[in-house]
Amino acid sequence: MANTLTEQEVQQLRAETKGADRIAHFNNAGSALPPDVVVDTVISYLQEEAVNGGYETEAKYKDQLENTYDLIAKLINAGKDEVAIVENASTAWGLVFHGIDFKPGDEIITTEMEYITNLIGFINMQKTHGVVLKIIPNDKQGKFNVQALQDAISPQTKLIAVTHMPSSSGAMMPIVEIGAIARKHNILYLVDACQTAGQAPIDVEEIGCDMLSVTGRKYLRAPRGTGFLYVRKNVQDQFRLLFMDGFSSPTVSLHDYTIRPDARRFELYEKSRALTLGLGKAIEYALEIGVVRIWQRVQLLATSLRRQLTAIDGITVHDNGDELSGIVTFSVRGIDSQSVKTKLSEENINVSIGVAKATLIYMEKNHLSSIVRASVHYYNTQDEIRTMCTVLAGIAKG
Amino acid sequence: MANTLTEQEVQQLRAETKGADRIAHFNNAGSALPPDVVVDTVISYLQEEAVNGGYETEAKYKDQLENTYDLIAKLINAGKDEVAIVENASTAWGLVFHGIDFKPGDEIITTEMEYITNLIGFINMQKTHGVVLKIIPNDKQGKFNVQALQDAISPQTKLIAVTHMPSSSGAMMPIVEIGAIARKHNILYLVDACQTAGQAPIDVEEIGCDMLSVTGRKYLRAPRGTGFLYVRKNVQDQFRLLFMDGFSSPTVSLHDYTIRPDARRFELYEKSRALTLGLGKAIEYALEIGVVRIWQRVQLLATSLRRQLTAIDGITVHDNGDELSGIVTFSVRGIDSQSVKTKLSEENINVSIGVAKATLIYMEKNHLSSIVRASVHYYNTQDEIRTMCTVLAGIAKG
Repeated sequence: MANTLTEQEVQQLRAETKGADRIAHFNNAGSALPPDVVVDTVISYLQEEAVNGGYETEAKYKDQLENTYDLIAKLINAGKDEVAIVENASTAWGLVFHGIDFKPGDEIITTEMEYITNLIGFINMQKTHGVVLKIIPNDKQGKFNVQALQDAISPQTKLIAVTHMPSSSGAMMPIVEIGAIARKHNILYLVDACQTAGQAPIDVEEIGCDMLSVTGRKYLRAPRGTGFLYVRKNVQDQFRLLFMDGFSSPTVSLHDYTIRPDARRFELYEKSRALTLGLGKAIEYALEIGVVRIWQRVQLLATSLRRQLTAIDGITVHDNGDELSGIVTFSVRGIDSQSVKTKLSEENINVSIGVAKATLIYMEKNHLSSIVRASVHYYNTQDEIRTMCTVLAGIAKG
Repeated sequence: MANTLTEQEVQQLRAETKGADRIAHFNNAGSALPPDVVVDTVISYLQEEAVNGGYETEAKYKDQLENTYDLIAKLINAGKDEVAIVENASTAWGLVFHGIDFKPGDEIITTEMEYITNLIGFINMQKTHGVVLKIIPNDKQGKFNVQALQDAISPQTKLIAVTHMPSSSGAMMPIVEIGAIARKHNILYLVDACQTAGQAPIDVEEIGCDMLSVTGRKYLRAPRGTGFLYVRKNVQDQFRLLFMDGFSSPTVSLHDYTIRPDARRFELYEKSRALTLGLGKAIEYALEIGVVRIWQRVQLLATSLRRQLTAIDGITVHDNGDELSGIVTFSVRGIDSQSVKTKLSEENINVSIGVAKATLIYMEKNHLSSIVRASVHYYNTQDEIRTMCTVLAGIAKG
């Protein structure tokens, strides 16, 4: 086990983040505060583009830009040829999901905790392709039931798709156990690791997933407008490509084209290279700290926050599960979530709201129209948590 | 007719562009130098995000971000509800092209000048959907033949798709005349205006197009990673959506979803808001100068450059057509295009190379393996042109 982040290290990391002393930012599951080095990297690249030209600057930074792929591969224990850089996680997810050759009667298995965008994708396939959607219900304790998933598998099961850390709950889906089942039955397995990357270790070999989608702006602390897609080498040829350009197709004639032999076939070439470089820098920063250590501290802080929230009269914490993420969800009796967020904001504390729609099945089942979401990152402090809980106690008292 | 840009105004505009005095940038068809105000807008937004959080900053800049849609609408004479902001023009183009419900035997009509990405899209539909691709050949003078397009139309014609200003030629396609034909026969009409936006006026009503795709980084002088899509209101419901999220679908149940009533259904919500704001600022800047005046100056400079190039022994200018864009293409006898580019670069002059693949049909027909592309913008000067031509004369002499 890695040594935990010391208080001194946390202070140093906070000193490297301009925003850290300005606000208590508990919206890391929305968009985290980036380290200064990430912002500086993006800005200086933009400044260089402005005086030398976009493509000219790209040529100069060829190696550094290429290195972003190496860093992504390292972060998730993948091959460099299994990684594509895209604008956001929804694009990453959609590029593979909608590239699957679904036939009527094919089954998709998912969980109650699935993210809205993915759910809309399933419903779309249900409507347009006659695909059958099987949603595995949580058990009575609100925990995911691996056996129920195992039992739901049939010869028609084409895809298992799971969000590892749901948007509106601290619950975590057992993606490694699910992966073992997917592997055993040789079923395509798509993991949405949007909230996981930069928060907890990701090892695509351990997970056994075929595809994994990630965003940059959340726990990775990368710029908005960045994300990436992992597609296992041996399944890449199974997907129809939604978009192609001269970069995904090395040779083109009037009757045919070839497709490049790696995951960059899923990309379109044109993008902000400044943001790509910022994404790389953010991953490098996380790797330097150590994702295991980050994960330890996130869990420490989240546990502390949940304990303090639970002790406040009028506050209910909603997270259920054996292992919980840095996403802490709660509600304040008699006060709508938006008001709670606004009042915290007046004290320079950022939280966010999880609306029912975002995690539709889970929220409706639990009669939650909205929850307050306080998502902690390693740069948050126990002081910030105490301050927030003091304010919340005041709000709860009315 | 608008008054032309004065020398004094050009000097003022150059003073507002940090790169203008550092290099002679003739790669505006690749990625132009942005005005300082665009770079500053992006940078200050990124800095604000870094201290206040991504979503918190977005909420604060709601009106300014919204205004980008108004500015796009104004630039192309569209309704605000007919515009979507996307990462690049290929995404814009692909979102509608691949959203068309093609059936076997449906015909697509295009030109010899079509861009590689679009061509791959056609070939894909040819392979996967049995669609018939009709490519209208230029006449013997290398000009587009509107009558041949008219003659090619049949009851099976589903789409006319045209790149207005091709990537590797100064030729311009007569998009207004083509539009009249498309309207007369009620055929979907998709215009790739990648090189047009910010260079010449665009009026979707005058063009009569149903869809139009644009990138930010070229003549609009906006940041890389920006583009937009226009889709005429009355055809929006014809398209299958390739991607959806909670933003494109206002209401979702387990069996269905609704789709928002405007063109933003084609967007995914998550993107770099810093870049969106930069795109808006770039459009505002172009509108303030006046696109008609920009277009006048681009034509003036391009004509001057072509005249001077033609006078150099050993240089052949390749652009053909009644009306030519700011994209000037040529080759130097006995010297490959890459060497020409490198030698110019040593003199702080940026040009680019058009490879055969980029405009495959045109280039192969004309036996061009590559061309040098010098794309002028209004901030270029006659002095820069003279200097480049002097260097080129030296290169041509050997």
